[in-house]
Amino acid sequence: MPTAVATAKVLIGGEWRDSDAESIFEPENPATGEKLGREFPMSRWSDCDRALSAAVEAAHQLEQISSEKIAAFLDAYAAELEANAAAIVQAAHEETALPISPRLKDVELPRTTDQLRQAAAAARQGTWRRVTIDRQRNLASCFAPIGPVVVFGPNNFPFAFNGVSGGDFAAAIAAGNPVIAKAHPLHAYTSQLMAEAAAKALLGSGLPAATVQMIYKVNHDTGTRLVSDPRIGAVGFTGSKGAGLKLKHAADEAGKPIYLEMSSLNPVIFLPEGLKENTQKWAKELADSCTAGSGQFCTRPNLALLIASDVTETFLQELTGAFNSREPHALLSATTLNQLHESIEALQAAGAAVVTGGRNLPGSGYRYASTLLRVPGKTFLSAPHRLQREAFGNEVMAIVAANEAELLQVLEQLEGNLTGCFYSSALGADDALYARLAPVLRRRVGRLLNDKMPTGVAVSPAMNHGGPYPATGHPGFTAVGIPASIARFTALHCYDNVRPDRLPAFLRGE
Amino acid sequence: MPTAVATAKVLIGGEWRDSDAESIFEPENPATGEKLGREFPMSRWSDCDRALSAAVEAAHQLEQISSEKIAAFLDAYAAELEANAAAIVQAAHEETALPISPRLKDVELPRTTDQLRQAAAAARQGTWRRVTIDRQRNLASCFAPIGPVVVFGPNNFPFAFNGVSGGDFAAAIAAGNPVIAKAHPLHAYTSQLMAEAAAKALLGSGLPAATVQMIYKVNHDTGTRLVSDPRIGAVGFTGSKGAGLKLKHAADEAGKPIYLEMSSLNPVIFLPEGLKENTQKWAKELADSCTAGSGQFCTRPNLALLIASDVTETFLQELTGAFNSREPHALLSATTLNQLHESIEALQAAGAAVVTGGRNLPGSGYRYASTLLRVPGKTFLSAPHRLQREAFGNEVMAIVAANEAELLQVLEQLEGNLTGCFYSSALGADDALYARLAPVLRRRVGRLLNDKMPTGVAVSPAMNHGGPYPATGHPGFTAVGIPASIARFTALHCYDNVRPDRLPAFLRGE
Repeated sequence: MPTAVATAKVLIGGEWRDSDAESIFEPENPATGEKLGREFPMSRWSDCDRALSAAVEAAHQLEQISSEKIAAFLDAYAAELEANAAAIVQAAHEETALPISPRLKDVELPRTTDQLRQAAAAARQGTWRRVTIDRQRNLASCFAPIGPVVVFGPNNFPFAFNGVSGGDFAAAIAAGNPVIAKAHPLHAYTSQLMAEAAAKALLGSGLPAATVQMIYKVNHDTGTRLVSDPRIGAVGFTGSKGAGLKLKHAADEAGKPIYLEMSSLNPVIFLPEGLKENTQKWAKELADSCTAGSGQFCTRPNLALLIASDVTETFLQELTGAFNSREPHALLSATTLNQLHESIEALQAAGAAVVTGGRNLPGSGYRYASTLLRVPGKTFLSAPHRLQREAFGNEVMAIVAANEAELLQVLEQLEGNLTGCFYSSALGADDALYARLAPVLRRRVGRLLNDKMPTGVAVSPAMNHGGPYPATGHPGFTAVGIPASIARFTALHCYDNVRPDRLPAFLRGE
Repeated sequence: MPTAVATAKVLIGGEWRDSDAESIFEPENPATGEKLGREFPMSRWSDCDRALSAAVEAAHQLEQISSEKIAAFLDAYAAELEANAAAIVQAAHEETALPISPRLKDVELPRTTDQLRQAAAAARQGTWRRVTIDRQRNLASCFAPIGPVVVFGPNNFPFAFNGVSGGDFAAAIAAGNPVIAKAHPLHAYTSQLMAEAAAKALLGSGLPAATVQMIYKVNHDTGTRLVSDPRIGAVGFTGSKGAGLKLKHAADEAGKPIYLEMSSLNPVIFLPEGLKENTQKWAKELADSCTAGSGQFCTRPNLALLIASDVTETFLQELTGAFNSREPHALLSATTLNQLHESIEALQAAGAAVVTGGRNLPGSGYRYASTLLRVPGKTFLSAPHRLQREAFGNEVMAIVAANEAELLQVLEQLEGNLTGCFYSSALGADDALYARLAPVLRRRVGRLLNDKMPTGVAVSPAMNHGGPYPATGHPGFTAVGIPASIARFTALHCYDNVRPDRLPAFLRGE
């Protein structure tokens, strides 16, 4: 008889309590396909309902709490994560197969604690409030917390976008909102350890215990009910377009702001004169960007745009060679693997040809051969929607346009993306073409790059990790970059003729 | 045989052209119910399609045009409106029955030209771009035009919210977007005169002729198709909740940002100690606010909240007297009259009692008796949703709570509003109650007032003419107040490692 494993508890109303679970799930190690021996609950609505009521109370209490205390909590949480780094990194490694070093330990966890500390600094500084005072009319306005925020974290960043520790979490808390985190079930134990650190940091912080709550998994109906509940202020979601659009529909119908980061192909355009000068170098850069982390980044290039030539053929051969010579890491899950293969099959059905890859790899874990697809510009133009299906993983599709005019037509068919990039001659030989193409791409992306791959998203006030639909739900907001990302979780409050002693301190203008 | 009236033309692609009309409508004078002898077209989709294509071209051209030229156009348009003020004011008076003076000539038209000039100043100043530069990482971000904006103007402001001249128009143009205005058919001729002024100001401005386009009327299907067309950037809508929600649904499904100002009851809470001191004064202020312009303002109070007492009875008697002693102006249309009566009947069916009014007035024009409804707090709490139906016109419903606790419960049931107001004792006698109630109201309104009626919306940078759903579609945006209102029609653009000579001039940081 096996030893009974205790099912993990959910964090609701400041307590780790037994979930009212409709079922139990057991995460596995994607590098081996083996269960990790831990059980987590899939919550029924009653868990959400309790969390929502507790969050409403917490939101009201937070209105009375100083920004300094909120900032101190964010700092304390960052320190608590660092104190528990070894265990957290190990858990994430087991659950995601992402390398401990440098990825988890040296890049993603430091980035996450940096985000929390930048959010703390922004809470202290208060510029996110954008105070505007009109003394003559006795009017004052500022941005204020929007209310309880539900954050759905994605599968691909166990720390930096985790619902209980990532960028949406940090931004929502910095503005004074409680967060209900929906952890990603693929890294449930990692999320549990992080939530434990958050709960510890909350002790003695002066913040309500329900400032941070967490559940692990819900079914679709419960998820849509959660994002449309009258008690919430807003929703942050990072994940697949399919899941994102279902939540968007529900939130929209209920009049709830929802910020989504859903899907992006991140086109990279290699202009012809520069390509002659840098054939091998650029092929290597593209291969690096497509295969790092097995391509499981929102900003990984899924499209490479080129003009037909002998040099382009050489470039694609170099790329093929680079793909074939590298041993892919495991993907995050069997589902990730299956969806990648399905997308590649769908792209083939729409007219793309496999140059290399297009198949599962043998051995343990969920691994897929790095895949280069190829499609003529003309074919792309005949089915631009079907050929813009995201393949989440180590895949890229080269669109080879017959000439400059066709390349322009391809750009004009691109949907909204987080990023878009031009590689061009350093000597100015592509400048005329750049000038024709850049305005077309500019309108279709949140971040425009030159001579640099889009993977790697700096946490800078000048960053935009956003873009036109369907990359996100609104082109005016960014998920990365503080204080701009805080704006998503705020409401505009105006005070008209309000007596001075009844104004928030920062509006008194003393 | 009557003289044939030429059907008005639509402004598309810089030309006044015959509409591909599915039908013709004839505006009437609501003060008399008589037709005004002018014919206007209801556009088929083909008109919209042409306007959209022209707008896309104009949007691209505007990207290359200096802010100074955009500002100069807005200034020239304001001057052109002033030069034609007499004819425009006369047209609006005939079409809306609103008084020429002070309302149309001395208040609304000056406000409209002021908005255009403030938008011009904002375009010159450029703070709406919110430039952020990170030199170390060679990152720069700014807000940029979102693309063609469709503006649906409401019936109640022929100038200041008109699709071709109002706040949404000014904000969209200031950011460099072309506008497709859907004029309100109730003041079609006024809109035509204003669009003629805009077209004249465009001549020689250097801006594309399709920067300003206008149609008069479309059916529901064409309207929803327009707001979900891939070619648009965003939508501004001011009008009824019913029409707004249909457009919101269509725009949301297409991933298009839509900014709506739909419905607001603008609760005014009269606290008991102050009410003793100011019974007559406050009753007069409320009566003034409810009846000015026959209550046809988005911020007119539809709810007065009170605690039961003898003083409250006196207050309601004063209010009744004030309502009965005033001769109401004509409403904007037969539809406005019928909808007002329907709303009042629906509120009665939900439990409200008519104290005075509740009926059409005899004589010419569409006039309705100023109406006071009354409902006990307990009844309101039994049907809070049905009893929050907007009655657009000269109506107010008093909710009389049994005590402070019940008043708090009523506040907790309020939906989102543009404004909410407390009247309280100047001597501090209501302060304890204010402290309990104000946070509850604060979360439910965009603008919180003290001791002042919500009608009258100053065009100030500190104004918020917005609020939580269903007052608008997003609590973080304002429709009035420059530069904040411009943010609605922008997208966030980031430049990552882009070569300096390829950056917009304002990002070079020279």
